[in-house]
Parts: sequence; C-alpha cells; structure tokens
Amino acid sequence: MPQRPSRQLPLATPAGVEVLTRILTQGPIPRVEIARRTGLSQAAVTKAVAPLIEAGFVTDQAAAPLGADQTGIGRPVSPLTVVPQSVSVIGLKVTPTALIGVTTDFTAGILNVCHRPLDDTAPDAVIEQLAGLAKELIATLRTAGPLVGIGVAVSGDVDERHGVVRDSPFMGWREVAVAELLGKRLKVPIVVTNDVRALTVAEHWFGVGVDADSFAVVTIGSGIGCGLYINGEVVSGAYGVSGELGHLPLAPGDLVCTCGRRGCVETVASSDAILARARETTGRPNLDLADAIELAHDGDEHARAAFDRAGEVIGSALAAMVNLVGPELVVIAGEGVAEYDLYEERMRQAFAAHAFGAAGDCRLMLRSHTFDDWARGAAATVIRTYVRGEPPLQR
Amino acid sequence: MPQRPSRQLPLATPAGVEVLTRILTQGPIPRVEIARRTGLSQAAVTKAVAPLIEAGFVTDQAAAPLGADQTGIGRPVSPLTVVPQSVSVIGLKVTPTALIGVTTDFTAGILNVCHRPLDDTAPDAVIEQLAGLAKELIATLRTAGPLVGIGVAVSGDVDERHGVVRDSPFMGWREVAVAELLGKRLKVPIVVTNDVRALTVAEHWFGVGVDADSFAVVTIGSGIGCGLYINGEVVSGAYGVSGELGHLPLAPGDLVCTCGRRGCVETVASSDAILARARETTGRPNLDLADAIELAHDGDEHARAAFDRAGEVIGSALAAMVNLVGPELVVIAGEGVAEYDLYEERMRQAFAAHAFGAAGDCRLMLRSHTFDDWARGAAATVIRTYVRGEPPLQR
Ligand SMILES: [Zn+2]
Ligand SMILES: [Zn+2]
Repeated sequence: MPQRPSRQLPLATPAGVEVLTRILTQGPIPRVEIARRTGLSQAAVTKAVAPLIEAGFVTDQAAAPLGADQTGIGRPVSPLTVVPQSVSVIGLKVTPTALIGVTTDFTAGILNVCHRPLDDTAPDAVIEQLAGLAKELIATLRTAGPLVGIGVAVSGDVDERHGVVRDSPFMGWREVAVAELLGKRLKVPIVVTNDVRALTVAEHWFGVGVDADSFAVVTIGSGIGCGLYINGEVVSGAYGVSGELGHLPLAPGDLVCTCGRRGCVETVASSDAILARARETTGRPNLDLADAIELAHDGDEHARAAFDRAGEVIGSALAAMVNLVGPELVVIAGEGVAEYDLYEERMRQAFAAHAFGAAGDCRLMLRSHTFDDWARGAAATVIRTYVRGEPPLQR
Repeated sequence: MPQRPSRQLPLATPAGVEVLTRILTQGPIPRVEIARRTGLSQAAVTKAVAPLIEAGFVTDQAAAPLGADQTGIGRPVSPLTVVPQSVSVIGLKVTPTALIGVTTDFTAGILNVCHRPLDDTAPDAVIEQLAGLAKELIATLRTAGPLVGIGVAVSGDVDERHGVVRDSPFMGWREVAVAELLGKRLKVPIVVTNDVRALTVAEHWFGVGVDADSFAVVTIGSGIGCGLYINGEVVSGAYGVSGELGHLPLAPGDLVCTCGRRGCVETVASSDAILARARETTGRPNLDLADAIELAHDGDEHARAAFDRAGEVIGSALAAMVNLVGPELVVIAGEGVAEYDLYEERMRQAFAAHAFGAAGDCRLMLRSHTFDDWARGAAATVIRTYVRGEPPLQR
C-alpha cells in the first residue's frame, strides 16, 4: 500500500481557518471581500493567505470573473481560489448490501467512484472490505494530491469524537470502533460520521449552505433522516444525537420500529415499511419494492395507499421539524426521491395541515440522489475536519 | 412623563460587542480571560474596554474573587464587571387576564414589579393599558440608570424585526403593530418578542446558558412552548417561527387546537385542555382548574387521567424535540410547573419510550416559575438588543 504523509495546513490562528474556509466555500473571492465578510482587517487576511499560497493550497493566479461588488480600481483584484489538487480525500458509505467509495479533491469534487457488494454485515467482515476498498481507491490517487484522511458514513448513532458507531439498527451494529479498526489497517486519519450529517456537511460547505442562513436535509428511503444547519453550524447534538426525524413518535403505536420503539415515523414511512404494508393490502406477500412501486404507478389503490400513508407521516414529520427549528429551506434527498411522485401529494397536504404560521413558508427543494452523494458527504466531513484542525481525525 | 435619552454604548466594532457580552454574562472576568475565551488579543480587549469604563458601563474597581485559571502574577488582575445601575430596562408580559411589568438593571436584576388585571383583550385597549403600566414603571426609575428600551413579550407568532404580533391565538390578535402603537405613546425604543423566546434569551445571558453549550426551555401551562439555544445562539427561525412544541402533531386528530389545526400537543396538554377533559371524565361541567388539580391530588382517577394524558403527550413532545436537536439540558418552566407532580410520571415514561439513543441522556431540570420571569425575559431581550446595537429597537 502506498504511504503518503498527511500534509499539514499552515494555519496558526482561528482567523486563518476562517479565511481558508471562505476561500474554499465562497471562492473565487478577493481578499477585500473576505475582510468584509469576516470583519477581519485586510492586513490580517493578507497575512493568513500568504503561507497558504506559499504551500500551494491557495492561488490568486486563476482567471476568474469578477463579482459585482468587487471594486479594485487601479490595482489587480486577484480573487483567491483553493488549488483543488493540493489535497485528496476518500469518502466511504456503508450500507447493509454495498459499500460505496469515492475519492475527491479539496473542493469535494469527485475523482473516482467504486461500489462493492457486501454479503456479510458483521463488523469484522465489513471493516475488512472497507479497508480493501480504501486501498483500491488509494491506488488511484498516484497523480492526485496527498491523501489527508478517510471518512466513513454509517446510519445511526455515531460517536464522532471517538470514531465509534454506537448503534446502527440497519447494520445491526453496536459499539463498533470503526476509526480504530480501520486506522490500524490503513495508517491514515479516519473520521466516522452519521451518514445524514455527512450529507448536511456537504450541503453546508459545498451546496445550498453557501447561500442559506439555515436549512434542513431530509432523507427518505430505507430510513428517514434529517440533518440541520442552524446558527452558522451543523447541529451535532450535545450527546451526538440529532436530526432523528425517522424516530419521532408521529405514527400509530401498533408497529415496532427497527430501533425497538413504537410509533416511530419509520414504522410506516421507510421503504421496508411501505413494502410490508403494500404486501398486506394487496394480499401479495412476495412483492418486492420495485413491484410495489410499479403497482402504485399503475394506479393500484392498495399499493398507492401504502405510499399515501408514508407521505402523510413524512409530511407531519416535516411540519414538526419546521415548527421546532424554522429552517429557511428543506432539501429532500435520499433514494426515496426516485418515487417522490408517489409521496408528494399527501406529504404536502400533511405538511400544510400541521406547519405553524410562517414556518410553513420554507421552501421544500427536491434533490435527485445517488449513493455516491453519501460517500461524498463523508469526504466533505474529512475536508471540514482537516481545515479546522479538529481532533476527530484520528487513527 | 419624564423623558430620558437612550444612552449610547461606545461600541464601534464587533469585538467591542463580544467583549461587553462576556463581561455582562460571565463577569467578574479579567481581561486576560476575555482574550482567552474570545480569541482576541489582549491589546484588542483592553482597547474595547477602555471607552466602556470611561462611559461608566464597566468597572474594574469592584472587589471580586479570583478564579482558578487567572494568572496575574506581578500585576493587578482587576476583573471586569458591568455597572448594574448604568442602564435601566422595562419588561412587559401580556396575558389574556393580566399585564405584568418589571424594571431591571443592566444585569436583568429585577428592581420593581407591577401587575395589572386586564378585562379587555382588544389590541387598542391592551396597548392603552400597557402604555399606562409602562409610564407607572418609568416613574419608579428616577434614581436608576437611563431607560434604554421597553420589551413586550406576547405568546404566538411574533415578527420581531417589525415589532408586529402576527398571530396570537391566546390574545385573539392578528397583525397587531405593538412596537409602532406603543412607541407613539412612549417615545422609547420598543422590542416585541415571543414570550418563550424571551425566557430563553434570559436563560442564555443570565441563566443556564452561561454554562451550557445548548439547552431548551420548555414551558407548560396555558400553552406549551419551547425556546432553543443551539450553536451559540437562540434559534429564531428563518421566518420568525421556532420552538412551537405545543403545535407538533403528536396528539390524536379528534380535537381542534386554538390555532385551528388538528392533533396539536396543546389539544390535550394545555391547562384548558386538561380542564375540559377533567370536566368530561368526572361528569362535572362546572369544575375550574383549581378544582381539577385538587381532585387529582386527592386521587380522583378521572381527574388524574386528564393529567396523565397531558403528561404522556408532553413526554412524547420532549422526546421529539431532543431527537431532533439534541440539547445538553432541558429547563421545564411555566405556570404548569406548580402541578408538576401530576404530570411527571407519565411524562418521564413517554420521554424514555421515545427518546432516541443518547439523546435521552439530556437532563430535565425543573424551574419554579412566576409570571415576573416572563416580563424579565422581555427585559433581557431589550438588554441583548441594546448591547448588540441591533435594529429591532424601534419606535
Ligand atoms: Zn424508531
Ligand atoms: Zn395548534
């Protein structure tokens, strides 16, 4: 396995981190504009930028169009951008049936994608497969920038600080020390994160978050998840749990959730729950999800009813979320988006019925989805951790 | 009416605001400690503090104990405190049956309290009464610091930016321009705020927020409300709505809420809903709330059932909230706290049944409650607005 040293960013101060973050997420951007947006003096910006240019992470040489509010009369404005190839990152997403891996550059631009089927979800087997996938991806990085870290996204309750998956019902995992187990095999800094939070970090730094003061990412599909960006930061939860929209007690209490609780949103709105309901209502116990979707699209009222019920509780859950945190916009993502037409009407009705006052003004924005996005989210999390110099990049 | 000029704070920069905020909320605090906590240089702190001392808002003359991490070897440490009497504030709370007013100093310490019964909730009548109450309170400020603003706390959907109560079901108000109407009569800057958010601001600057990284304030009583403090700031909602815990769709859909929606938490958990249920189950249509409480305390199973049902849905709502935002602790306040023993068991059961993973580790903290606290919250909101130099202080 080729070993590459992690390349240290020359960031001595919080101001330096702030400046690099602006260049990375809002570039191309002139120094004067960074000063304006951060409240730092121009001298402080220039001082923070110099070593970043020196070390090759940032450049002011790129030809970039000037924005409307950039007044550099009489001198060159030279907007700053990061050098994408100065850094490489690997993002991995773990699902019960497949592993998805991507390599990205410093701006979370995807370089390579690799999918691997998974036939054993036991922690040791998955870690072994993840290590193999990572090595394969590392081998593709020969001509790319130095690898600064590997991110692993898993659904469920993840202790990011210690790199431990505390509880992942989908994987059937409890207390799996992913960062430690994988770090031993790879000798690269590892970040482990909740998958929906990873998607939210990617939106925060490289997506809608660049323009929105607050937003939520809601994922529909095999689980119902939610990431929140409020007051300038992704919400992480004091005890590592947040955004558990799929486990709000909004459904009738007669069904038991994968998490063991009753009345969770996922008991009627997850794709498994929809399929189970469709099998029941159509009287066809051998349906698979594709069959149920096809039947519903063909207008079968029993199959449609299963999606209606899911749409209704998802709409109530969205309303509950906006009533509590009032985001500017909601991005709807996840593999369930492919069948969004089957949820949409009931979902919007329930949302309208329960959104309180002006909270209902928030825009619902659909995002088409691929599994690669989850892996890219894990990569974005590594980039954020790397730029901030935060401790969770551990091996 | 005695007119006093608003006294301008000598705060030219964001750093100045940050420094004063630290002194106000964390003082007594030495300059070196402010520098450490804010990341500012000691020179910048000293530069920001000098004009505040000069103008009499801050002092380093008070005898204050030294903290453990304050190393001022060889020179005086002189911790900084604000001068409480350098500023006066009025906070008003509007309820359907009474107005509550307080005067406070710069640290939100209550100087005077005044209650007035209200027998007409029409906006014009209430504004007239509020103006009278404010004038009465202003008259008590003769020897106190200059009055910098009046805060008005109302339940419901409040547009703080424009000082308009958009929708207050309890008051039966829609689109009432409180800041404008009151400002005309008083010629003092007015801040209008949602009452629960006001309570949260008070906790943020002068209560649990000084030590907690995140918290929620949940109020139980005639309404069920919630204020959130996450990522360093009170959550205000992109459209002015947040924390509407009382209007999460967690109750059965058979009852219509005061807000016009079905299934809201308040349809079973507000004090009116509890009373209506107790009248029904006991078959005694003339019960008042005090009777219902007494019956329940005496062990009447019908009366108890009404509180049980309320406790159960409040517990579910608490679980929904912590599953979404994961606060470090939850402060339970509001007039319903007086009968907390009647809710507690079912509430804790439902919370435990629906809190997801480590989100359930958050501490539930009971706060005994008086109506004066709501008015003090309005005063705290004025203090925050004044220190930050924010626009909503309008007349
Ligand atoms: Zn669940
Ligand atoms: Zn309601």
